Amino acid sequence: MNSSLKNDLLINALAGKKNNRPPIWLMRQAGRILPQYRAIRSKLSGFKALIANPEIACEVTIQPVDELGVDAAIIFSDILVVPEAMGLNYELVEKKGPLFERTVKNERDVADLKIADLNSNLADTIKAIELTVAELNGRVPLIGFAGAPWTIFCYMIEGKGSKDFKLARRMLYEQPELSKQLLTKITDSTIVYLNAQIAAGCSAIQLFDSWLGVLSEPLFLEFVKPEINRIAKAVNGAPKIYFPKGGHFIHHHFNDLHFDGFSTDWNMPIEQIRQNAPNKTLQGNFDPAILYSNPSHIKKSALQMIEKFGDQRYIANLGHGVYPDTPLDNVKCFVDTVKAYAS
Amino acid sequence: MNSSLKNDLLINALAGKKNNRPPIWLMRQAGRILPQYRAIRSKLSGFKALIANPEIACEVTIQPVDELGVDAAIIFSDILVVPEAMGLNYELVEKKGPLFERTVKNERDVADLKIADLNSNLADTIKAIELTVAELNGRVPLIGFAGAPWTIFCYMIEGKGSKDFKLARRMLYEQPELSKQLLTKITDSTIVYLNAQIAAGCSAIQLFDSWLGVLSEPLFLEFVKPEINRIAKAVNGAPKIYFPKGGHFIHHHFNDLHFDGFSTDWNMPIEQIRQNAPNKTLQGNFDPAILYSNPSHIKKSALQMIEKFGDQRYIANLGHGVYPDTPLDNVKCFVDTVKAYAS
Repeated sequence: MNSSLKNDLLINALAGKKNNRPPIWLMRQAGRILPQYRAIRSKLSGFKALIANPEIACEVTIQPVDELGVDAAIIFSDILVVPEAMGLNYELVEKKGPLFERTVKNERDVADLKIADLNSNLADTIKAIELTVAELNGRVPLIGFAGAPWTIFCYMIEGKGSKDFKLARRMLYEQPELSKQLLTKITDSTIVYLNAQIAAGCSAIQLFDSWLGVLSEPLFLEFVKPEINRIAKAVNGAPKIYFPKGGHFIHHHFNDLHFDGFSTDWNMPIEQIRQNAPNKTLQGNFDPAILYSNPSHIKKSALQMIEKFGDQRYIANLGHGVYPDTPLDNVKCFVDTVKAYAS
Repeated sequence: MNSSLKNDLLINALAGKKNNRPPIWLMRQAGRILPQYRAIRSKLSGFKALIANPEIACEVTIQPVDELGVDAAIIFSDILVVPEAMGLNYELVEKKGPLFERTVKNERDVADLKIADLNSNLADTIKAIELTVAELNGRVPLIGFAGAPWTIFCYMIEGKGSKDFKLARRMLYEQPELSKQLLTKITDSTIVYLNAQIAAGCSAIQLFDSWLGVLSEPLFLEFVKPEINRIAKAVNGAPKIYFPKGGHFIHHHFNDLHFDGFSTDWNMPIEQIRQNAPNKTLQGNFDPAILYSNPSHIKKSALQMIEKFGDQRYIANLGHGVYPDTPLDNVKCFVDTVKAYAS
């Protein structure tokens, strides 16, 4: 697929090949920051209805490529489609977040979960990927994604968002073997899903570990690292990015993780990470709150960010998803600053 | 005051004097984990009614000393009493957290805020401290506390809890000078309050920066460090602990912060912090979720924790507040394990 890409900045950065400037895309670039998205969203009954409709998912995936000129699209979907495909339905409650009908509490609940296959809700996203790749026709690469096993585990145990996921952590301490069984099932499902995304035409994939930050290094080594490495080894045909959100305690393990790139929060020690893992590509890490300020501050901060990372083996992005109420002109200023960068 | 303490383990640890074993206390030790607390709480209209009643606040402050045998008491109060004393009323909504009637949005709002004095709700906590010190009669030291300026700023801007305090961060970027004016007022209020706590008999104080983790090193250096150092220099007569929750990006600045001790989350790199700041006392950092497991796992983990920190210049504690539904016997096992430790 990649050989036909007209914009290969992202793929080059992940392969460690020289780029004239860093590629840029934004987490949550397809979403409420765009008036085109809001217009479509207002006609639908909810976020999940959008994911379930491949034509519309394709359309909103491409919107930021047209409107912002970013160097990659990321398929419009949700990390919780995997637990749904495993048998746990959820709804997205406006302004509150996800809410699962049932949670996982015991061995029986774990045994009842399926390994996800494509005869499920996942087929909608795979179809959306096929449509998007055809529609993009090589303009930019399409990124696929999934939640990392620990983050999916969090939602399966707690059934909704949490600031510390203490019940999920409790499960690791109280029932470590059962926890591993559950993580293994999530990993197996994720491998099926990500390989299908690549087969459908994704040029790269990102694994979001949104809640890694509530763990610690020993828990990471015992429960997270084996699973994400199993994913990295079993998912082939496209470069892979891991986003260990809040995982400041794992930087010295980046070299042992079989990913090409790592996405970084806005408060991570970039110089130190570069020293520890000079042959990995880094992504990030603009504080999305800076996009509330003004163009001159945004421009200055964006250039400082590139200087900090260096312009090679680097993908410009935010440290977290763009906030839905960010002024669009400020987002454009950020993208344009990176695109105008000359090394 | 300290000369009359019968248990000076905490004070010794903060002064770098030799102890036969580490002292232990638990964040949120006075609270729902204790049946004695729940019995009192059930008779009152709310958490704030408890803080407003010095006799009852005194009683619940001492309960964990009697029931758990911890080496320090911490006055029962709330970090949000300071914004209230500055003119912003709040309520604590059951299962939801704090909710302020008004938030700070502009210059006028900042100008309207008072510098806190003791002719306010703060008098209740000061009275509770006097009663508690008299009642403890030197059994253990009493710790006073306040929220750090940035954390109080977060609540003043957003008016309630948040997972990322993006509006507060937005304020720093959009209106840095106004932000500093507000932080200065909070700092001035905090200095008044903490000095009054020490005058009333507190043997140590802790400054809780519960939301430092949403910032970054540059923001810490610009907006946080000057304020907390001003507090540390202006508050005298007792050792001071700073709890930079989530602030993994500031460890190399500990030596430049005028605090005697630093409390640490359960995922912080302790060996590295010890190397960077060998003459500071560290506190923490047991994952409170481990207290859901079983006595043998708790005991093993507690001993590993002490080995990691070393038994001098060390105060055993949790990495965050104890969860209200923790089995009491498990909490006792943790405390007893530390108390039985022989170096």
